[in-house]
Amino acid sequence: MNIKMVLRSLGMILICEAIAMMPSLMVSFIYKDGTGVAFFYTIFILLVVGILCVIAVKPENKTIYTRDGFAIVAFGWIMISLFGALPFYLSGSIPSFIDCIFETVSGFTTTGSSILKEVETLPKAILFWRSFTHWIGGMGVLVLTMALFPITGTGAFQVMVAESPGPIPGKLVPKVANTAKILYAIYVLFTFAEIVLLVMAGLPLFDACIHTFGSVGTGGFSSRNTSISSFNNVLVEIIITMFTFMCGVNFSLYYQAIKGNFKAFLKDEEFRFYLAIVLGAILLISIDLCGNVFETIGESIRHSSFQVVTIITTTGYSSTDFNNWPIFSKVILFFLMFIGGCAGSTGGGMKVIRILLLMKSTKTELLRIIHPRGVYPVRIGNKVVEEKYVGEIKNYFFMYMLIFVIAVLVVSLDGFDMLTTLSSVAATLGNIGPGFSVVGPLGNYSEMSVLSKLVLSCAMLIGRLEIYPILLLSIPAFWKKVNI
Amino acid sequence: MNIKMVLRSLGMILICEAIAMMPSLMVSFIYKDGTGVAFFYTIFILLVVGILCVIAVKPENKTIYTRDGFAIVAFGWIMISLFGALPFYLSGSIPSFIDCIFETVSGFTTTGSSILKEVETLPKAILFWRSFTHWIGGMGVLVLTMALFPITGTGAFQVMVAESPGPIPGKLVPKVANTAKILYAIYVLFTFAEIVLLVMAGLPLFDACIHTFGSVGTGGFSSRNTSISSFNNVLVEIIITMFTFMCGVNFSLYYQAIKGNFKAFLKDEEFRFYLAIVLGAILLISIDLCGNVFETIGESIRHSSFQVVTIITTTGYSSTDFNNWPIFSKVILFFLMFIGGCAGSTGGGMKVIRILLLMKSTKTELLRIIHPRGVYPVRIGNKVVEEKYVGEIKNYFFMYMLIFVIAVLVVSLDGFDMLTTLSSVAATLGNIGPGFSVVGPLGNYSEMSVLSKLVLSCAMLIGRLEIYPILLLSIPAFWKKVNI
Repeated sequence: MNIKMVLRSLGMILICEAIAMMPSLMVSFIYKDGTGVAFFYTIFILLVVGILCVIAVKPENKTIYTRDGFAIVAFGWIMISLFGALPFYLSGSIPSFIDCIFETVSGFTTTGSSILKEVETLPKAILFWRSFTHWIGGMGVLVLTMALFPITGTGAFQVMVAESPGPIPGKLVPKVANTAKILYAIYVLFTFAEIVLLVMAGLPLFDACIHTFGSVGTGGFSSRNTSISSFNNVLVEIIITMFTFMCGVNFSLYYQAIKGNFKAFLKDEEFRFYLAIVLGAILLISIDLCGNVFETIGESIRHSSFQVVTIITTTGYSSTDFNNWPIFSKVILFFLMFIGGCAGSTGGGMKVIRILLLMKSTKTELLRIIHPRGVYPVRIGNKVVEEKYVGEIKNYFFMYMLIFVIAVLVVSLDGFDMLTTLSSVAATLGNIGPGFSVVGPLGNYSEMSVLSKLVLSCAMLIGRLEIYPILLLSIPAFWKKVNI
Repeated sequence: MNIKMVLRSLGMILICEAIAMMPSLMVSFIYKDGTGVAFFYTIFILLVVGILCVIAVKPENKTIYTRDGFAIVAFGWIMISLFGALPFYLSGSIPSFIDCIFETVSGFTTTGSSILKEVETLPKAILFWRSFTHWIGGMGVLVLTMALFPITGTGAFQVMVAESPGPIPGKLVPKVANTAKILYAIYVLFTFAEIVLLVMAGLPLFDACIHTFGSVGTGGFSSRNTSISSFNNVLVEIIITMFTFMCGVNFSLYYQAIKGNFKAFLKDEEFRFYLAIVLGAILLISIDLCGNVFETIGESIRHSSFQVVTIITTTGYSSTDFNNWPIFSKVILFFLMFIGGCAGSTGGGMKVIRILLLMKSTKTELLRIIHPRGVYPVRIGNKVVEEKYVGEIKNYFFMYMLIFVIAVLVVSLDGFDMLTTLSSVAATLGNIGPGFSVVGPLGNYSEMSVLSKLVLSCAMLIGRLEIYPILLLSIPAFWKKVNI
């Protein structure tokens, strides 16, 4: 492993975090909420440690190997979570440090699970930072770092591969740094557009910012205890549905569209499948809810579409207490938690493309039994997907379920009901946020034990980083020296 | 497809079912319970249809192709279930024919899920037939057919492959018919041994037979409403635990042992993993139960070992109402439902070897990321498992979960709680029997809708036949003519 390059990269990430914390410092000055000191100290610590890492280390070899990429991503995310928890702790907003870490990990991983019972009385700057972590984590901390400080030398792509969601990595343009800049440009555009629209729909600027960070990052933290339902504003719901849906789509399609290729959306099989799942789920749930939970079909469609989109994109906002919905609707939402958004989006879960490829591979497998001598490659669009990638995705599916099982076993020690236990793990591993029952849209994770909070924090990181970076750290072979 | 050979084989299966029904006819004469006519008619119908199929068809080509093997198995199992339901219906023991089919499928697939609220008042011969279907289905209807009427010609192995549980088929001896005979010989030996032991432990002969069929077939039907707990006899529990555990092991190991190779057990990685899971689960549940549900560690071990073994072997007997156990223990039992017995055993589920291979393949995948140029084959014992089989197993896992999801969606329409919905599907797809909540050890499936009963019956067949035979029927390509 090229430890010097890893350290240097980690230093740059910390400097980036310091920069990312400055808007929150400004908010604390504007609202004079007394949290300025907490942010100031944290930024100071981040800059000192970060700059020390960058200056002190002089890497002779600037190559970043595959392993280094995973190490940078894994340690980078763990470190920003630890340092990012400081403002919550130093300002006294969240007394327990474990809770601070849970909340920060939940923020950066765009999960949106909270241990807070009451958020409306929190200092504004703390609320801002809490939601801003969604915004940073959504597009990726490493992507941000690379957009600000392009990593020169070979292997910057490795870092991006290790952080970006989806099984088959791609670059928009040959240079990684430029790809990162383009992605952030689109992301910033969406962010401004949503803030403006939400303000026009009647939200105060502060709330508009908070809920924009939560939706474009597909996070789900709110400035209200009862999430979006507290506004009871259809327009706000429509805007949030629209933007979360858009941010659950592969961002490379928007780049195509900017270049004039609007057909890219229709041609993209993953997008079509994503759309089909969303529409199908809305239809089924609307029928289930109508006359049952809501009196009109209009209300049913309103809430089902909001809930389906915020769950599949793994945002997790709620426009109503879906905990009280009939079991059929709840089961659909539960399974959507595992699917998640598209590859290259800000959404979590297993990603639509993986499910699509698994289904295609299943069909292939059946055809192979019927005609053992036939050749049936798995295709996405017109392109044949390499057997290697298909194999990796199948393994990914098993690993995802295995981690789910292990985490459920640990959380079950807390003695909550089965629905709470299963959904809390599904909702954190898939980076959704709320689950059902105790951890439902009106509930929170405060009653979980310290052990469960730690395990669920790990689950969030594992889910966001798509298993490998975190899991590799636990393999002895990862740490052994090899001659490359 | 060689339709003539398929028809002929189906005819032989029906004749076999007629023969298998004769002991029940005898029981009805012994107990004079008035069901003799029902059995007589059914046997008559089976013989007429069966003999007609065998005589009327004159296959010129005796080759059984892969597809034919799957068709024989799929239709064979559907037919024996339909005809096997007749005694229940004709005797008036179960008034609804859908319920009769559910109960028969549950019997043959060794699931043991029941729609009966009250079994103790049923005619003896009906109880006998209900449990005897476990005995036949455990080792396999096709295996029985081949032991009785050796299919000559090429491809008899295809049929056995399509029915036998586990991913990598093997023959004990070169001839399929002889393999079938050896398997049944071991099976009969176990059966007699358990009956004798249960009688010695104090059970009446009839109850001893019923519970032996239920345990060696890993089925789970009982002659008592409260299953094994009604006896409250530790000796009976130990005998049943022992035999269900034994029947969850690959029968080829017993063949090795008979030939003097006792070390085969210790050398077999699947057996070691199976043993480790069983002991691990017993330990964890015992700790969880002690001082909580039971006062002594002895009682905790007694019930945890009984429950762990009957659930992982997919038998489903209960020595106590585990529905009231704490959530940690219930979660363990729930996950054991997915694992199931070893390949080549009478147990259901996904099979231990598949889980073992998936875990090994996961480790391999991680090592490959660290050393992209390394070669890491997956091994079982000293043998390298072909990449092809590993790929198939990964697909199997996804298909199993996909079928689980689809069935859960349908059953959730009934509006039961989440635990009932999830566990009813897990318990039927894995051929266990009871689940939790409404379908728990003291409950039953009688309150399910007709649609759910049909879907769960399909789930039982899909689980027992390991997905492919039933799923292939739904693929248009399966029915298309091809030049081979």
